Amino acid sequence: MSDLARLRPVDDRISLKYGAGGRAMRALIEQIFADGLGDVPGGVGLAAMDDGAVIPLGDRWLVLTTDSHVVKPRRFPGGDIGRLAVAGTVNDLAMMGATEPLALTCAAIVEEGFPRAELEQIWASIRATCVEAGTTVVTGDTKVMGKGELDGLALNTTGVAITSRYVRDCGLAPGDLLIVTGTVGDHGLAVMAARHALALEFELRSDVAPVNGLVRAALAVDGGGVVAMKDPTRGGLASALAEMAGKSRVGVEVHEPAVPVSDAVRAAGELLGIDPLVVANEGKVVLGVRPAAVDAVLAALRAHPLGAAAAVIGVCTDERPGAVVLDTGFGRRLLSEAEGELQPRIY
Amino acid sequence: MSDLARLRPVDDRISLKYGAGGRAMRALIEQIFADGLGDVPGGVGLAAMDDGAVIPLGDRWLVLTTDSHVVKPRRFPGGDIGRLAVAGTVNDLAMMGATEPLALTCAAIVEEGFPRAELEQIWASIRATCVEAGTTVVTGDTKVMGKGELDGLALNTTGVAITSRYVRDCGLAPGDLLIVTGTVGDHGLAVMAARHALALEFELRSDVAPVNGLVRAALAVDGGGVVAMKDPTRGGLASALAEMAGKSRVGVEVHEPAVPVSDAVRAAGELLGIDPLVVANEGKVVLGVRPAAVDAVLAALRAHPLGAAAAVIGVCTDERPGAVVLDTGFGRRLLSEAEGELQPRIY
Repeated sequence: MSDLARLRPVDDRISLKYGAGGRAMRALIEQIFADGLGDVPGGVGLAAMDDGAVIPLGDRWLVLTTDSHVVKPRRFPGGDIGRLAVAGTVNDLAMMGATEPLALTCAAIVEEGFPRAELEQIWASIRATCVEAGTTVVTGDTKVMGKGELDGLALNTTGVAITSRYVRDCGLAPGDLLIVTGTVGDHGLAVMAARHALALEFELRSDVAPVNGLVRAALAVDGGGVVAMKDPTRGGLASALAEMAGKSRVGVEVHEPAVPVSDAVRAAGELLGIDPLVVANEGKVVLGVRPAAVDAVLAALRAHPLGAAAAVIGVCTDERPGAVVLDTGFGRRLLSEAEGELQPRIY
Repeated sequence: MSDLARLRPVDDRISLKYGAGGRAMRALIEQIFADGLGDVPGGVGLAAMDDGAVIPLGDRWLVLTTDSHVVKPRRFPGGDIGRLAVAGTVNDLAMMGATEPLALTCAAIVEEGFPRAELEQIWASIRATCVEAGTTVVTGDTKVMGKGELDGLALNTTGVAITSRYVRDCGLAPGDLLIVTGTVGDHGLAVMAARHALALEFELRSDVAPVNGLVRAALAVDGGGVVAMKDPTRGGLASALAEMAGKSRVGVEVHEPAVPVSDAVRAAGELLGIDPLVVANEGKVVLGVRPAAVDAVLAALRAHPLGAAAAVIGVCTDERPGAVVLDTGFGRRLLSEAEGELQPRIY
């Protein structure tokens, strides 16, 4: 991460921005959480801050990833906290190239007084999403916190997979093309609209879905070609590209008109003063692809229901390593990451 | 778990007792969390409610376990939430026979405003305990919740290990002897005293420690002999024995005077009206051992610093399968599990 350096020292008190997926969070991880921990000889450890860890296991690799989930509201158009938990973990495994999740764990922290009926709904969603992703929850943990000690429910899902080949988020080289597998901004704006009970004219719907099948299709392309992957979750496309560019030490040039954005997301983004490019996605992938393979990868993605709108959105360059430049069609500007929590303008 | 049956239907609202490690928690897991999930063909899945899952991996086994940690206070005599998180997960792996933890994950949910300095202390403790257990944290996750949405900090640790032999909590047969590796009740009473700022005459100190080295010593005894293990955490020795007896379909007879209890714990227990046998331990193991191996296993345990006070405390019978009978030296009674959260009498 030294190439992303110039991270500021962590403040004396942890504020919301430290959980927002951007530079502040990376500073917290680098300066405290990863300090003296997580070295994996011959693999990918904690300091890499990739979507998961990779541990050598004979001639294969064990991939491990973990995520906590505290989304509000717990139910939103397109999904709920249960679907989010399973898809999020399956997708982090897939981002490392491990598209066959061996097993998940699920640990629940429940607030005293939480309704049993809602737990049942959430677990129905967990079950259904596991079936969709071809995996299951093999072990868990249950804690109950006192009334007022936790706002409702926190879930942790951890996933493990064995793979014969892994993919990192730092494998880009100048000339590689960048693909996004569909429209961006859907999840974050749908949750925000639900959280603030915004009355919008258009329906926003989270894209939350396990993408391991989609990634499997891309990785199956003859001769490979996929050299880097990341899912644009917290911090959105902007943070994903910034991390990939920084770690790969390449410049990234994004052609903004090529980035798929739905009409509803575009309109909501304009109304709320929020750029869809910094908003979380939960069913999308950014892939770095060698130029010779791009047509085949794009065809493979588009043949999958979750990749129908896949598009090439940019190219890697040897200029300004670590920088993401946005060509708007009218001019060029640096695409910056969001500093902290996104707040709709009308608030 | 059907042999532990007669669990009551889960209440409409989740109360504290559902996190206490006893019958209420098992009902919640069986009726909601494990419903339709966690089947592991040829291994140990979610419905087994063992200390972890076991998944076949060629001629070996992958063991997976997860735990969330919300202890209050976060720092107590003998340890803190960081040590507890690492030891808890390492110990759950060890209970399945996997004494070489391959890697841990650690996910933190932090309340807005949490002091950086305390995070640094906790991570120093995580690092030190990882070194002690011979493992490290290879990947993580960071979320920040708003002020008042979480009381401080919640950690999740998940552990993975590969083992060539696993041990379950249900392997007891009539005639097997039960060993506990040292004094019981230390952790729970130390935390309770710290939480309620009780002024006691004697020093209570948590036993929190990774016991994988201790378990390794026991499992290395020639010819095996260890047929079941469980760590008496939430619910204490009483819950551990009840689960082992129920799942193994044997009766258990415990000779109470043989159970190691420190003078401080005994005195505190009497003062507070809390039986040390229902109080959590975080550095102890209950082992079921074939009679022929008991001397060798006991010697191996006692040769380890964490097992110096190991003792045979009981025997398995073919009477009253699932019941734990306590022989007090004056008479016999059923040892019942605590129903819910333990509350000191003076409160």
